[in-house]
Amino acid sequence: MKTLILHRGHDRRSRSGHPWIFSNEIARLEGAPEPGEAVEVLSARGEFIGVAYYNPRPLIAARLVTRQRESIDETDFFRRKFLAATDYRQKIYGDLPALRLVHGEGDGLPGLVVDRYGDVLAIQLLTLGMERRKSLILEALLDIFSPRAIVARNDVAVRELEGLDRAVELLHGELPQELIINEHGLRFKIDLMEGQKTGHFFDQKENHQALRGRVEGRQVLDLFCYSGGWSVHAARFGAREVLGVDISAGAIALSEANARLNYQDNVCRFERADVFELLREMGREGRQFGTIVLDPPAFVKSKKRLPEAIRGYLTINRRSLELIEPGGYLFTCSCSYHLKRDIFLDTLRKAATQAGRTVRLLEMRGQAYDHPVLLSCPETEYLKCAVLQVL
Amino acid sequence: MKTLILHRGHDRRSRSGHPWIFSNEIARLEGAPEPGEAVEVLSARGEFIGVAYYNPRPLIAARLVTRQRESIDETDFFRRKFLAATDYRQKIYGDLPALRLVHGEGDGLPGLVVDRYGDVLAIQLLTLGMERRKSLILEALLDIFSPRAIVARNDVAVRELEGLDRAVELLHGELPQELIINEHGLRFKIDLMEGQKTGHFFDQKENHQALRGRVEGRQVLDLFCYSGGWSVHAARFGAREVLGVDISAGAIALSEANARLNYQDNVCRFERADVFELLREMGREGRQFGTIVLDPPAFVKSKKRLPEAIRGYLTINRRSLELIEPGGYLFTCSCSYHLKRDIFLDTLRKAATQAGRTVRLLEMRGQAYDHPVLLSCPETEYLKCAVLQVL
Repeated sequence: MKTLILHRGHDRRSRSGHPWIFSNEIARLEGAPEPGEAVEVLSARGEFIGVAYYNPRPLIAARLVTRQRESIDETDFFRRKFLAATDYRQKIYGDLPALRLVHGEGDGLPGLVVDRYGDVLAIQLLTLGMERRKSLILEALLDIFSPRAIVARNDVAVRELEGLDRAVELLHGELPQELIINEHGLRFKIDLMEGQKTGHFFDQKENHQALRGRVEGRQVLDLFCYSGGWSVHAARFGAREVLGVDISAGAIALSEANARLNYQDNVCRFERADVFELLREMGREGRQFGTIVLDPPAFVKSKKRLPEAIRGYLTINRRSLELIEPGGYLFTCSCSYHLKRDIFLDTLRKAATQAGRTVRLLEMRGQAYDHPVLLSCPETEYLKCAVLQVL
Repeated sequence: MKTLILHRGHDRRSRSGHPWIFSNEIARLEGAPEPGEAVEVLSARGEFIGVAYYNPRPLIAARLVTRQRESIDETDFFRRKFLAATDYRQKIYGDLPALRLVHGEGDGLPGLVVDRYGDVLAIQLLTLGMERRKSLILEALLDIFSPRAIVARNDVAVRELEGLDRAVELLHGELPQELIINEHGLRFKIDLMEGQKTGHFFDQKENHQALRGRVEGRQVLDLFCYSGGWSVHAARFGAREVLGVDISAGAIALSEANARLNYQDNVCRFERADVFELLREMGREGRQFGTIVLDPPAFVKSKKRLPEAIRGYLTINRRSLELIEPGGYLFTCSCSYHLKRDIFLDTLRKAATQAGRTVRLLEMRGQAYDHPVLLSCPETEYLKCAVLQVL
C-alpha cells in the first residue's frame, strides 16, 4: 500500500482516534497515491496509525477508515462495517425498518451515509474516497439488506469540494410509487428523490417523543416544520390545535399529506410563511401558545458566519419566548455543529433576558441513537434540542 | 423595606434573572439592613429589580428571592413557593413520595433545600437569610405536607461562610425507627441523621434507569458506590455479578443493607477500598468488566483546584476504560459544577486516547427533574452523566 507520513507533532489528533487528516499535516507521500486511493498512515517516527483514503483536493486530505492493517478495497470490509453498524442499532432499536444505517464518521465510515426506508435504501457518497468504492458499497448493501431499490442522493454541496458532481441517481432496482415509513406508530410519506437530505430527518426521532405530556390540550406552534414530524406528534399527543409553518411550499404540502395520513388534519393546519416575519407579526398581535417548536435548518454553515447565525437564533428564540404562556414549553433546536452547546445555551439565556421571561432548562437533548457520536470526533455531535419551560 | 442599590453596569446578571449579588456589585445600602434582612434591590438608575435577603459576610452578599414587590417575611410567601415547586414535580412524577421538593435557586428559593422521604422531611438552611426565616419555613412545610418529622441537616461547610454553625437537628415530630424509600420499585434505607447530604442522592434517579439494557448478564463494577443505588439497579436489571466499592465502611454497610432489602445480595458484593488503588491493581491483574459505573464525589470544590481535579477524573476514567470489554459500557459522572460539560468531555476524550480505546458517546445525561435548572443561573446545572460504549 502507498504511504502517507504525518508531520512531527501533527499526529496527536489521528492517534486520539479522530479520522480527519488535514493537508498541512502531511509531511510526505510515498508511491504517489492517486486521488481516492487507500494509503497507510504513519507518524513522523514511522509508527502505523491506520488506513485512510486520500484526496489532494479538499482541506481534509485524508480520512482514516480503519486502525487495523487491512484492505479497504474489498466488499468484505464494507460488509463487516455494515454488520457492526446494524448490530449497534439492533441492540437499541430492535428491528426498526426505518432509520439511519450508517452515519459516516460515527460508524467508522467517513463520507458515507446510508438511510433505510423499509426495503429502499438512500445513500450519500460525500467524498471521492467513498465515490471510488461505490461498487463495493453497493455489493455489500445488496448482500446484507437485499433492498428493492437503492438511490444515491449525491446532490450535496460538499461533493464539489472533493471534485465530484452533484446528482440524484437510482443505483439499483425500481422505486415504489409511494414510500411511507412508520415512526413510533405514526406514518410519514417520504419524498426520496426531492426531499431534503435523503428525504427524512431521522435525527429528531427520540426528541419527538419528548413532546408527550407537554402539549395536551395546548395550542402548538411548529416553526420550520418541514415534513410535519413535530406537528403530527404534537397532535397525536393531544394538542388542541397545531399550526405548522415553513417557507417552502413543498414542505407545506408534505406536512399536510402527513397530517392526513395520520388522521390529524382536523388538529393540524399548515401555513407557508417566513418564520422571522411571522413571529414579529404574532408578537404585535399578542398571540399566545402553550408550546412552540423551533427546529430551524443549520444557520451556521461555517465558523466564519457564526456571529451572524447567533443573531438569528437569538431573534427567533426571543420572539418565541415572548409568545409562550406561563407554564408553557419551548422545544428549541440547533443542528449546527459550529454552534456549540454552551454558546447555544448562552444564546437562549440572552433570549430569555431580552424577552423578560424566567425559564427552566428541563432537558438538553441530542441526536437520535442512529446518529452515533464518536467521542474522539467532536464533529459527529451536532444536534442540540433544549426543552425549556417558561415560568 | 430597606434598599440595596447596585453599581452602574453591575445589574446585568440580576436583570437576566440570576439571583446572586456579589458584595463588590453593591453601590450602597439605604436604611442599614441587618444581616439576613430583606432588601429591595434597585439598579443604579433606581429601577426595581426584586427583593433579596442581605448578609454582609459572604462574597454573595445578597440573593434575590422574588422579582415581585412582595414581602418574603410571610408564611404565605413560602407556602406559595412550596406549592409551585410541588406542582412542577407533580406534573412530571405524579405523586412521588420520595424526592427533592425544593432545590434552592432552581426553585426560586436560594439557600434552601427540602428533601422528602415519605412523611419525613429533611431540610438544609444554607444561608443566614433562610436561617432567619426558619420558623416561617417550618410553618409552611407543616401546613402543606403535614410531615411526622422534620430534620435540619445543617452540617454543611457553606454555612460557616454565612457566619452560621453546623448542626443536625430534629425540628419537629419524632423520627421513625427505620426509614425506607421506594425508587422505581426498589427500596432504599435512608440514614437521615448521618448519611451524606440529607441521607440520599435523588439526583441520579433517572440515570439509574439508563442501566437497563446495558448490564444484562454482565460483570458490573460500581465505583464510589455510597448507598448502592447503581449496584442494586444493575442487579435488578439482570447483571450477572456486581461489585460495589467505596472507601467508607458506613457506605459499604448501607449498600449491603440495600442489596439485602431488594433480594439482590446474591448478585451484589461490596468491598471497602480506595478506588484509585483498586483500579490500578485490577489493571495489573487484567480484570475485565462488562459495565463500569464511576460516580465520584465532587473532586472540584473550587475553581482554583480544577486542574488537580481534572487529573483525578482523567486517571479514574482512563483506568476504567482499560478494564472494559469490547462492547461494554462506562457510566461516568461528575457532580462538580466547576467541571463544565465541555471540559468533562475533553477529559473523557483524553482518557480514551490514553487507554487506546475507541469510544462512542451514547448519551450525555444530567440531573433528575427534581433538581431543576434555572437557565439564568448556570450554577444550578451541576451533574453530568456520560454513557460511553467501548468499541
